Amino acid sequence: MKARITVTLKTGVLDPQGKAIEAALKSLGIPGIEGVRQGKVFDLEVSAADQAAAQETLKAACEKLLANTVVENYAIEIA
Amino acid sequence: MKARITVTLKTGVLDPQGKAIEAALKSLGIPGIEGVRQGKVFDLEVSAADQAAAQETLKAACEKLLANTVVENYAIEIA
Repeated sequence: MKARITVTLKTGVLDPQGKAIEAALKSLGIPGIEGVRQGKVFDLEVSAADQAAAQETLKAACEKLLANTVVENYAIEIA
Repeated sequence: MKARITVTLKTGVLDPQGKAIEAALKSLGIPGIEGVRQGKVFDLEVSAADQAAAQETLKAACEKLLANTVVENYAIEIA
């Protein structure tokens, strides 16, 4: 089954990359952007017996590799 | 208003980063992952008169900076 994992910085963690994007958008003349925070998205194809097993696998993937849980949150959506 | 832009590689475009993640998950002993493709996500705060104006602003941001439309798709969600 297909799944999407979204990894975003926790609130309060500085995001210099987002700030740079915000400044770049401003200098390109795009108005009204007041904040940008960048994250990562992973589209995965998982083979698992059922949705609960897939959720378990994806949680392990996030905890062990995809997200740094000290500074990042992750969200798992299974399609 | 808040918006989320998701930028993903188009189908058929090679994703070596995704392949590397897939191999890493396998070597970490996480079973059943059969494909990984990595993308980017941007959480933005937009000030605009209405949803249509926000959509217009975000489309310009994607076309001019956030996505390389030759090889990437983008999706805009306004909350």
